[in-house]
Order: sequence, then C-alpha cells, then structure tokens
Amino acid sequence: MTEDALNAFVPGPRCRIAGAPSGALAGLDFAVKDLIDVAGWPTGGGNPDWERAHPVPTRHAWVVERLLSAGASIAGKTGTDEVSLGILGENPFTGTPINPAAPDRVPGGSSSGSASAVAGGICDFALGTDTGGSVRVPASFCGLFGIRPTHGRIDFTGICAQAPTSDTVGWLARDAAVFAKVGAALFGEATPTALPQTLLVATDAFGFADPAVADALAPLVDRLAAIVGTRQDVTLAPQGLSVWKDAQRTLQSSEALRTFTPWLDRFNPRMQYGVARNLALASLLTDADRTRAALMREEARLRLRQLLPPGTILCLPTTPFPAPMLGLSISDLAFPRERITCLACLGGLAGSPQVNLPGALVDGAPVGLSIVGGRGTDSTLLAVAQAFA
Amino acid sequence: MTEDALNAFVPGPRCRIAGAPSGALAGLDFAVKDLIDVAGWPTGGGNPDWERAHPVPTRHAWVVERLLSAGASIAGKTGTDEVSLGILGENPFTGTPINPAAPDRVPGGSSSGSASAVAGGICDFALGTDTGGSVRVPASFCGLFGIRPTHGRIDFTGICAQAPTSDTVGWLARDAAVFAKVGAALFGEATPTALPQTLLVATDAFGFADPAVADALAPLVDRLAAIVGTRQDVTLAPQGLSVWKDAQRTLQSSEALRTFTPWLDRFNPRMQYGVARNLALASLLTDADRTRAALMREEARLRLRQLLPPGTILCLPTTPFPAPMLGLSISDLAFPRERITCLACLGGLAGSPQVNLPGALVDGAPVGLSIVGGRGTDSTLLAVAQAFA
Repeated sequence: MTEDALNAFVPGPRCRIAGAPSGALAGLDFAVKDLIDVAGWPTGGGNPDWERAHPVPTRHAWVVERLLSAGASIAGKTGTDEVSLGILGENPFTGTPINPAAPDRVPGGSSSGSASAVAGGICDFALGTDTGGSVRVPASFCGLFGIRPTHGRIDFTGICAQAPTSDTVGWLARDAAVFAKVGAALFGEATPTALPQTLLVATDAFGFADPAVADALAPLVDRLAAIVGTRQDVTLAPQGLSVWKDAQRTLQSSEALRTFTPWLDRFNPRMQYGVARNLALASLLTDADRTRAALMREEARLRLRQLLPPGTILCLPTTPFPAPMLGLSISDLAFPRERITCLACLGGLAGSPQVNLPGALVDGAPVGLSIVGGRGTDSTLLAVAQAFA
Repeated sequence: MTEDALNAFVPGPRCRIAGAPSGALAGLDFAVKDLIDVAGWPTGGGNPDWERAHPVPTRHAWVVERLLSAGASIAGKTGTDEVSLGILGENPFTGTPINPAAPDRVPGGSSSGSASAVAGGICDFALGTDTGGSVRVPASFCGLFGIRPTHGRIDFTGICAQAPTSDTVGWLARDAAVFAKVGAALFGEATPTALPQTLLVATDAFGFADPAVADALAPLVDRLAAIVGTRQDVTLAPQGLSVWKDAQRTLQSSEALRTFTPWLDRFNPRMQYGVARNLALASLLTDADRTRAALMREEARLRLRQLLPPGTILCLPTTPFPAPMLGLSISDLAFPRERITCLACLGGLAGSPQVNLPGALVDGAPVGLSIVGGRGTDSTLLAVAQAFA
C-alpha cells in the first residue's frame, strides 16, 4: 500500500526532522502522533479547532527530544482520534487511517495513524499516547508490538493531556528488536536478559473475549508459557471486569471533561457527535461517583500488586475481538466499545505497564495478546516481547 | 457591503431560478434558507454531514413552488445554524453570515443567512423556518420585518423538520409592502384593510427585556397604539415566562432529538460542541417531563385564546436585547440564550402567528417589537405591519 493510500499522516506538508547523526536509534524513522509537540509544527490534535486554538509549539515534547538525540528521525505526524477521545480511529476531519492488516476494518485508536504508518511499513516505529487503551488497541487491531508504559515513567511534557492520572506516552513497532531498543533509549536502561519465571493467565479476561479470540490466542499463550516457565490460571478482577471498567470510565471521563472544558467553552469546537455526547454526559457524574471509582481504583491497584510480585507477569487478550468493520453506526458500536474498555481499563486504573504481542488472526484480522507486569517492569516486558518474537 | 462580504449564501455555486414570467410577486428576488428543498440543489442544512447523508431533492418544497409560480425568482440558498439548532447564527462550517445592521454582532439564527441577505439588500425577501424563534430573532437582530405564521398554516413539505409540533416556515423582508404581498401569495388571501381595535401590551415581557430595550421600543408601542386604538396592559404568562420557556424547551428538545437520532446514530456527524451537547442532554428528559410540559402548553394556548379574541393583538419585545457580540464563549452565551427563549417561546408553545416590526436601536444595533394575534390572523398582522411602516 502506498503512503498516500494509507492516510496515516496528517494532511498538509510532511514534518520530517533528522535525528542526531549517531546514537542507539540512528537509522530508524519514527512517526509522531499529532497530540505530541514537535517544535515548529502545529499540534493538530485530530480536530481543526484544536489546532486553531493553540500556538505552534516552540519546543519538542520530552519524548521527541530524547528520540531525536538518540539518532532516530521523524518521518511525519500521524492522525489521531479527536483530542485522543476515541478507541476506533475514525476521524472525519483528517480522515480515518487505513488498517493495512485489514483494510475493511478500523485501525483502532486513538493512536490510529501511528499504528497505520508502522503496520504499513513506512516507518520503523511510532509514538502514541495511551490513556484508556489508545496504544494497545490499535496495536492489537493492526498486528503490532505496542507498549503502554508504567504511568508516570516517561515524561509527558509537551503532550496534549486528557486524563492526567491515566495519561501515558508509548510506542508501536513491527519488529521486537526495534521495539525494545526504543525502550532502552527512553527508559535509560538496558533491556534485561533475565525473564520472568511465572505466567499468570487471566481466565476472566479470556472468558470475556470472543471464543474465536481465546482460541486464536491459545498458541501464543503456550509459546509465552514455554519462554517464561510456570503457568497459572488466575482471576484478574475479582470485582468484575465491568466494575473496573465503570471505575476507569468515571475517572477518565471526569478528568477529560475538566481538561477540555476551557477549550470547549471558549471555542465551541466542531466535533463528532459521539465524542461531544460522551463529554456532555460526563458532566452528570457526581463527586460520589468519583469517590466510589477512586476506591475501586485502589482495590484494582492492590489486586495487581498481589498478583504481580517480581518475576511474575500476567497475560490477557488485548481486545475481545479484532477490529470492527469501517462505518458502523454509533449504536452498533456502543456495546463493542464498552467491551473493549473492559479489557483495556486495567492500564489506566492500575498504572501497570502493558505490552501487546501480535501474532494471532481471527477472520483474517489481527488480534493481540497482552502481557502486564508490576509497576516499573517495563523493560522486562520488552525483553519478553523480544524472546517471544 | 458586497454580496461576498456578507457571507449570507452557502458556499459553492449560486442557486438561481427564475420565477414564472407574471404573477403577484413578479420582479421580486428571494433567498431560500438551506433547510428548504430546491429541486436539483443539495439541501445542506448548515452541516457538511447533513448534505452528505441526504440525496439532492428532485422536487421543490411546497412554499418554494408557490413563490416561483407567483413570479418571484430565487437569488440563492442561505446559511443556517446547523440543522436549525441555534438562535445566534454562528456556524463554523459554512461561515457566520454578517449582520449588516451591526457587523460586530451575530446575525441571529437559525435563519441567519436569510436575514443577512435581506438586510444587506441583495434580495427582496427570504424564506426562513421558525421552530423556537428562528425567523423572529434574526429579524429583531438585523432590523427586518419577519413572520412566524400560525403553526400548520403553511405546508411544510420539503423542509427539514426539527420539532414538528412547533415547526413553521416564515419569511423576512425590509419593505412592509413586499412583506405583505408574500403573505397574500402564500396564504391565498388578500391582506385585509380592517385593523384590530385593541392592543395588549405584555408588561411581563417588557419587564423581562433590558430596560434600554423597553425604552427604545416605547415609541414603537405608541405608534402601534395610535394605529390600533385601545391600549391595555396585560400579563402574558401568569405562570411565568421562564415556566413557559421550560415547557417549550422540553417539548422542542425532545422532538428534535427524536427527529435527528437516526442521522446522529448512522452518520456520527461533525457538529459544534454546544449543539451536540444540547442534543445529548435532551436524552435525559423523561416522559414525566414531557407530560408536564404538554400540560403547560395547553395552559399557554388557553391564555392566548383568552387574551386574543378577534380584533385584539398583543405586543412584546421580540428579544430582550440586541444581537450579542460575535465570538462569545458558550458560558458567556448560556444565560442570554435562555433569556431569548423566554420571549420567543410563545410561538412554538401556542402556535400563534407573530410578526417582528423593526425600527428601534439600542447601542446602535436593531431590536424589534413583536405583534401576536390569534391563530389564523396572520394576514391581519401583515396589515398592521404595513400600517405601522
């Protein structure tokens, strides 16, 4: 597929910036989600009225600066769901990036263009953001490695916030070695050689996915178990994945509304109806709702700490199904969106690092297996991804 | 001001259709709000995803057909608030039409382009729709004659519906004789020569307007009283204008959401945040809310029947202030919008005909005086407007 046909990059002149002449990432090209500042280029945020409301940044985001210093070069800025509010990647303003692995399906979002560009082979890796699944879901749908790092581990300076207690910046890659190398540069530590010894299999999450997905992922789980060692079935969310989802939705929506209200009020921006509706309805959440959700977040964090001592990782399906078809209606997608969030919510809720491993197909479309570690074990997950590949 | 600078017409090729060679309206040019079908031209509805979702009409709306048959010619299709949902006329998709009478202020809406084109002198009259004030408010803000006819009096076929129990099609004109002639053609009856004998002055509505507006309208009320005869102060809404407003808002929003839901669901259209938010929040209204509102509508209708026997008309300020400045924020405009609706709600609530009479200025910007008659007395109101001018 040609670059133009992919529609991964934002419209207008292509942002290209050469990295430092030498460094660990020299020779690698990366794309930058258009929520992340690149000095001298507008941060479009996937919405014409976001770009209009914000000055062109004069400094690179921390993560961009770091990658350029390590020798990687910017290949372009990539499309996103509007101001990161979306999980499917459909954007009528900048166009929906193609899912090269399944062109009749959505790419996943909100890091849609980043996933499209990497899966389409036009750059080596790409930066995304992940608040509620925005790196992991497009990685699953496009068949890529993708990481949501430990919350707070990578400096978020120069990136459009959504829900600060859940916001992270991550990346996607086709090649596990490249995927790990980027981590070494950003975390400032070598990818470890020692692997975990215990693999937990989240039976509630596998049971929540479509049976065809659980079946397609089974060989990947076996491969993972063969690398890691002991395998053990566990329940990830004793309170229920849907209860965790509600808590994450409440916290994330409330924070997003707080983040975007000054812009919404001042600029009355054009938005897709579904995006605007979700923001509007978030105004109905109460302090009591938020308190209940914050308490459930504590319980989820406790659960992850209990399950994931050093040397243990957990696996689950990244998404309960492969990418939905393009062009479905809001009501067709309402329940599928909620199901995706039931599996993706643990990232924002617990702040744990999570990596999508590609390799399975259902109806010819990719679907990924996620591995999750304790907070700060990001590099271990990258090592597992390399061993897995 | 030049036609292009006015921004009254929708972008793209200009729709021009000559009327019948002879007829009562021969020689007059009119503009058509872009919610009203003109055969062979897209009905844009002020929203790019409305036009995309609907086929180009193959028949004229009833009202367009009638005007062309009477000899009037179409000068163009004019901008509107998105799918009629707005009262100020600001539209980022097609551009906000200029208010020629006060260029630093909004034109009023949703028949914004129609008001702009007529006030700018580039056509003789223009069609608009009025569900909750969409002809009367831009007429007040742009200094024009404007009529909301009796609900159901003029065939609505071929016009984008919003709230069917309140929707009407009306028109705006600079000249009272033209204004009345259009009515004669559409109502199929001559403008009467006999005028009403009693003028009721709605003291609650005058008290609700800005004091400067009440002062500026006082000479117009005197002029009207001199034409009509007996003058009598009355309370229009014993239950409160804000109670009437709530009832109209509940009924209109509920119907609008029902009207637009299939489109919203299927097309997930781009909309201004404020428009989308109002639709989303309408989903919270309950059947009990709607029943309460429908009962209040009955009481409002009863009140108007009691106040307006044959030979009596009522006057009130059309809007509580002249047009707001351009570019205010959603929160700046929240209370002003509600105040406008307190004065405009009686049209949709009672279904009575209402005409805006221009002639007053506040801070250099127009503000209009409304006259209201019993159902079916539209032509009498046109006769009063002619006598007034």
